[in-house]
Amino acid sequence: MLYLIGIGLSDPEDVTVRGLELIRSSARVFLDAYTSILSVGKDRLEEFYGRPVELADRDLVEQGDVILAAAQSADVSFLVVGDPLGATTHADLAMRARQRGVAYRVVHNASVLTAVASCGLQLYTFGETVSVPFWDAVSRPSSFLDKLLGNWERNLHTLCLLDIRVREPTMESLLRGRPEFEPPRFMSCSVAAEQLLALLAEVSAAEDNADLLAESDAAELRNRLNRRKQLPPPERLLTVGLARLGSPDERIAACSLADMASRDLGPPLHSLVVPAPRLHPVEAEFLRQFADTEADAALVDASAAER
Amino acid sequence: MLYLIGIGLSDPEDVTVRGLELIRSSARVFLDAYTSILSVGKDRLEEFYGRPVELADRDLVEQGDVILAAAQSADVSFLVVGDPLGATTHADLAMRARQRGVAYRVVHNASVLTAVASCGLQLYTFGETVSVPFWDAVSRPSSFLDKLLGNWERNLHTLCLLDIRVREPTMESLLRGRPEFEPPRFMSCSVAAEQLLALLAEVSAAEDNADLLAESDAAELRNRLNRRKQLPPPERLLTVGLARLGSPDERIAACSLADMASRDLGPPLHSLVVPAPRLHPVEAEFLRQFADTEADAALVDASAAER
Repeated sequence: MLYLIGIGLSDPEDVTVRGLELIRSSARVFLDAYTSILSVGKDRLEEFYGRPVELADRDLVEQGDVILAAAQSADVSFLVVGDPLGATTHADLAMRARQRGVAYRVVHNASVLTAVASCGLQLYTFGETVSVPFWDAVSRPSSFLDKLLGNWERNLHTLCLLDIRVREPTMESLLRGRPEFEPPRFMSCSVAAEQLLALLAEVSAAEDNADLLAESDAAELRNRLNRRKQLPPPERLLTVGLARLGSPDERIAACSLADMASRDLGPPLHSLVVPAPRLHPVEAEFLRQFADTEADAALVDASAAER
Repeated sequence: MLYLIGIGLSDPEDVTVRGLELIRSSARVFLDAYTSILSVGKDRLEEFYGRPVELADRDLVEQGDVILAAAQSADVSFLVVGDPLGATTHADLAMRARQRGVAYRVVHNASVLTAVASCGLQLYTFGETVSVPFWDAVSRPSSFLDKLLGNWERNLHTLCLLDIRVREPTMESLLRGRPEFEPPRFMSCSVAAEQLLALLAEVSAAEDNADLLAESDAAELRNRLNRRKQLPPPERLLTVGLARLGSPDERIAACSLADMASRDLGPPLHSLVVPAPRLHPVEAEFLRQFADTEADAALVDASAAER
């Protein structure tokens, strides 16, 4: 039997009582170590569970053979930060288990997708969740902005999940054919805000040059520009940064997008929310407790007043 | 201190280890008994926690005084099925605690909003969540259909949370001025499907009579009709029924809306999903395991093929 067990968001004690029983009675225990992380390391988990924990990197999970072969003859626990089927790769593991005749069972747990309610925004007024990837020299994906605008137009909040890079091989090591790994990277709210600011600045720049483009390109570009222009300027666009949700040193900050680019919310993991343009008064009242300055509080109040 | 503690979706063992510690060290323990339920009663919880549990009905929570007064001088646990801030009323309780100078802390847990991934549909392709209320002789709310269509148009799934009525006073008893309560009611997937079928039938009927209405009404009506007409006929509209998610006798069924109206998925709680018109192949492959008949499986395959 394969148990896909959510271990929550922060500490070893966030596992459920049932999850802990199953971990302790499993022959082998794997931990997904690349889609998310807890604030504690493998050692603390092993100590708390009283069991050895094997780290599973992307290859081990995506190939799946080691885990599924073990689960064919004994109980195996596969631990996931958050709720187990939140990432495509874990749904895929469950499906392949089934194809090989290995029964699986999911033990649910908290997820950032609902823990985000700690900022006071109501879950039923969130639209589609988006992922913000790290930009690099060759690639600057921006499709998340279009999804964000789709939510904004319908007065829905957007939760932005921020990129995590764990065990990424360096370009040089790939060329040498012997992989060495980059240090892990976790996108902060300030980096996410910087990327969003850069995108919005590009919109303005592109607008100035739209008449240089071929007519068909220009029409499509103008359409995108018009959608993006709905957003207020960065100094008046409210954002909410969430760091270490569910942990004792959780930190939530509500401020403008422009300010978020220079806020330090401390160690990972971070998530960013772009609230809907018009907040419910109760949402605004709750959110105001996370405004550090008078300017931040005024911005929250303005979002409620525009309703 | 007020602890808002999520207790998960099904069994007493679904509480987290931290949640259990806090419950056991609290002076008083309240259980929200009206926004959702576990599959077990108060007795099983008390036995498992080793603490008396006080049921909190809507009035007790919305007035809040009893709970907040207790939390002013001692540790109080307020237990909620799912993740604690999922319902507006609990965010409101946290805010009023803060206003009275009572510190609160949230202990997160699993929620149907993410456990729904057990059917194989990816969480990041869900749009806005909707609530389907029971209809009665005087009121037939239908705004959830417009939200569902908003998701459908953007190729997003819709999770429909189905109505729960606990401790509703009878009309007669209200007239007599001494409340007596209706037996609790939990909307099943089949009742939700029936209401949706009735709404869609009304669309067809209204269409036939649109020319009888005043011109301005007719234009608005025609706009709504045109949006609703995007949906395929009920025999070809794929739905997913989810019953007792996260419990050992969880039941998931994928079939047409027309068929869902006569499927019996057993005891509560139920939720209904209307998947996006075009599924990812991996979503369809996962979902197919919940198709009971060949016709159901063909409907799932058709949703993937249209992508």
